[in-house]
Amino acid sequence: MKQSQLFTKTRKEAPSDEVAKNAELLIRGGYIHKEMAGVYAYLPLGLRVQNKIKEIVREEMDAIGGQELIMTALQRKELWEKTKRWSDDAVDVWFKTELKAGGEVGLAWSHEEPIADIMKGYISSFRDLPIFVYQFQTKLRNELRAKSGIVRGREFVMKDMYSFCLGEADHTKFYNETIEAYMRVYERLGIGDDTFVTFASGGAFTKFSHEFQTIAETGEDVIYINRGKKIAINKEVLNDETLQSLGVTRADLEEVKTAEVGNIFNFGTQKSEDLGLYYTSEKGEKIPVWIGSYGIGITRVMGLLAEKFSDEKGIIWPANVAPFRVHLISLVGANGGDVKKEADNLYETLTGKGIEVLYDERDLRPGEKFADSDLIGIPTRVVISEKTLAVGKLEVKDRKTGKVEMLSESDLLSKLA
Amino acid sequence: MKQSQLFTKTRKEAPSDEVAKNAELLIRGGYIHKEMAGVYAYLPLGLRVQNKIKEIVREEMDAIGGQELIMTALQRKELWEKTKRWSDDAVDVWFKTELKAGGEVGLAWSHEEPIADIMKGYISSFRDLPIFVYQFQTKLRNELRAKSGIVRGREFVMKDMYSFCLGEADHTKFYNETIEAYMRVYERLGIGDDTFVTFASGGAFTKFSHEFQTIAETGEDVIYINRGKKIAINKEVLNDETLQSLGVTRADLEEVKTAEVGNIFNFGTQKSEDLGLYYTSEKGEKIPVWIGSYGIGITRVMGLLAEKFSDEKGIIWPANVAPFRVHLISLVGANGGDVKKEADNLYETLTGKGIEVLYDERDLRPGEKFADSDLIGIPTRVVISEKTLAVGKLEVKDRKTGKVEMLSESDLLSKLA
Repeated sequence: MKQSQLFTKTRKEAPSDEVAKNAELLIRGGYIHKEMAGVYAYLPLGLRVQNKIKEIVREEMDAIGGQELIMTALQRKELWEKTKRWSDDAVDVWFKTELKAGGEVGLAWSHEEPIADIMKGYISSFRDLPIFVYQFQTKLRNELRAKSGIVRGREFVMKDMYSFCLGEADHTKFYNETIEAYMRVYERLGIGDDTFVTFASGGAFTKFSHEFQTIAETGEDVIYINRGKKIAINKEVLNDETLQSLGVTRADLEEVKTAEVGNIFNFGTQKSEDLGLYYTSEKGEKIPVWIGSYGIGITRVMGLLAEKFSDEKGIIWPANVAPFRVHLISLVGANGGDVKKEADNLYETLTGKGIEVLYDERDLRPGEKFADSDLIGIPTRVVISEKTLAVGKLEVKDRKTGKVEMLSESDLLSKLA
Repeated sequence: MKQSQLFTKTRKEAPSDEVAKNAELLIRGGYIHKEMAGVYAYLPLGLRVQNKIKEIVREEMDAIGGQELIMTALQRKELWEKTKRWSDDAVDVWFKTELKAGGEVGLAWSHEEPIADIMKGYISSFRDLPIFVYQFQTKLRNELRAKSGIVRGREFVMKDMYSFCLGEADHTKFYNETIEAYMRVYERLGIGDDTFVTFASGGAFTKFSHEFQTIAETGEDVIYINRGKKIAINKEVLNDETLQSLGVTRADLEEVKTAEVGNIFNFGTQKSEDLGLYYTSEKGEKIPVWIGSYGIGITRVMGLLAEKFSDEKGIIWPANVAPFRVHLISLVGANGGDVKKEADNLYETLTGKGIEVLYDERDLRPGEKFADSDLIGIPTRVVISEKTLAVGKLEVKDRKTGKVEMLSESDLLSKLA
């Protein structure tokens, strides 16, 4: 895309009421727009990043048998009353509103109840199970405070997956497959090494539950990790019994600040019993379906990546989620025609090879273009100027390492391959 | 996809409270789930169709310079008050709710106000214009009645595009380009011949506005068309003056029932003035930006297609939006192994060539499989059975024409190419 065509521009300052580092960076880069506290629009660059994160998650969920669907924002009171999660005392993040035709409705903050209800139409026999479904959905949560930018918003995009299994054994198998799929997602997002499957307190059905926590300076959580053994424990369950069962001592563990990037729940059969979701077993018995739920906050992860991978100049996107792979910058001086021609040609060559390029062909000073480029944070910057033409090479800078190389076009192509 | 893996099943009857033909067909086929009146979840097959319609629209919007973004559901009262569209007297489809932190917010039924407000951050000079942006957004509208299935819902997906131009001339140019792009969309959706750019009454800024109306038995609208001249007029503006200006007489026109599949608005400078969206001209003057808005109801169009292209057996999807291109059905009889092997092979061959196949390898009676196939409505059905193996051909049936051919694998591939 030619940068002159992109309607957004970078800005030196974020709005004065913005206190979260992720939102400051993303607003300054033209990725997002703050509609109100905790509520952000995703502008073209931001939507590209969001879609790349989604696509990575989608591929990994499909790989473990997930079927994508999309549920609704509007929610029926009667349904959530069955599981005692309608009242504001039970769930303190509901937005509720009234139908003109009469009756109160809620706005979905999660979807366990509606998906279990949908499944009543499709699950009757043991032959119908297991089923794994997921969606990317805009959740609305009426958070009292919203000062964390897109890391904890009132409106945000979540991937939520739900599993429906015959019983605990099948559930545990899928639960463990999901843990592995999640770790592949974080690996591909560039945070694999810093992300830990963390023991947390279980519910009625399990001793432990699991959180996915990523080391982050601005994280809201604190966990205790052993990097070598890839063991992590959260505060709630940091006790002698847990330590012993994991074969570590408190001295083996390091305290780190983290942000939660995923969570998985074992609901057991409670919701199925509340909502009447049963199957008939091979022996003819009526058995409640075993339900699990598995979340990744897509926009939350995007905010975390922007914060975690940044420096004083701006964002440093991991290549897999960057809005573009290459930021091509032309510096058209006195000998303008040749520089423009070479840059236009390279733009055509790269895009022709399916490489996503943001081409800054704007008539601006070099310093402005470089500052924009650093702020936007595309992994590889390629400069074409009279100077580079003189030596017959391209100036290629790595946003992460800052390393500058003079490369031929074919060397650049090998590098990007 | 193997049909045994698809969690949805067809059903003989739609829910008794469902009165719309589109929703009846789509629920029976396992495409959608009714959450409440006018509110539907999109199950895997339904999401596939929705995404195909979106992708066609996306390509055509990109082709005329549209930049995709995504705005928010939650809306600020203060913003909509500026254009006098907050009160329920002015807009009767608002859902409104309260922030826990205090203050009333709305749920977006349209996005002219927020996009114009976003643009205040990016438009200052004539050099910044024109800008064309669009989104696919879930709109919430508090309709008093919701009896039209997904054709008119309380929660639905819309493509809304907004244009920001220097003045009327630029606006008109883009407006006309959009009309052409919309017609390309309808052409690709299989409703090109039956869709008419229809003259409707204009607002403050134009004599006429335009609607896109598609001939439909169950349509809510009535228009007057001349098929030969591709002229269409709605009831509001059917008068001598209009007829004369279009060079037709009432006798040249045929009255038809239609459904609106798109609309385009010229807002002129009214909203920019209300919201303070100005640019500085080349001469240094402060001039309000000229705004247009352009909608296509994605889920509405999906409902229309399901209704319009159906028979007593089920849906007949146009190939471009069908959830799969081929419905492969194996009829495994006594000589089961060979049929299964051949069908498995063909499934691999077709999917390997990038052809989307739903492979019904379930152990069901042929009649059940055929009935399912007719209801789901995939364009091409391919049957492999002992009978077809015996003659070394495939039985290929066209869902639309009902025509059955015995084809070799290479003939099938040519047909699908």
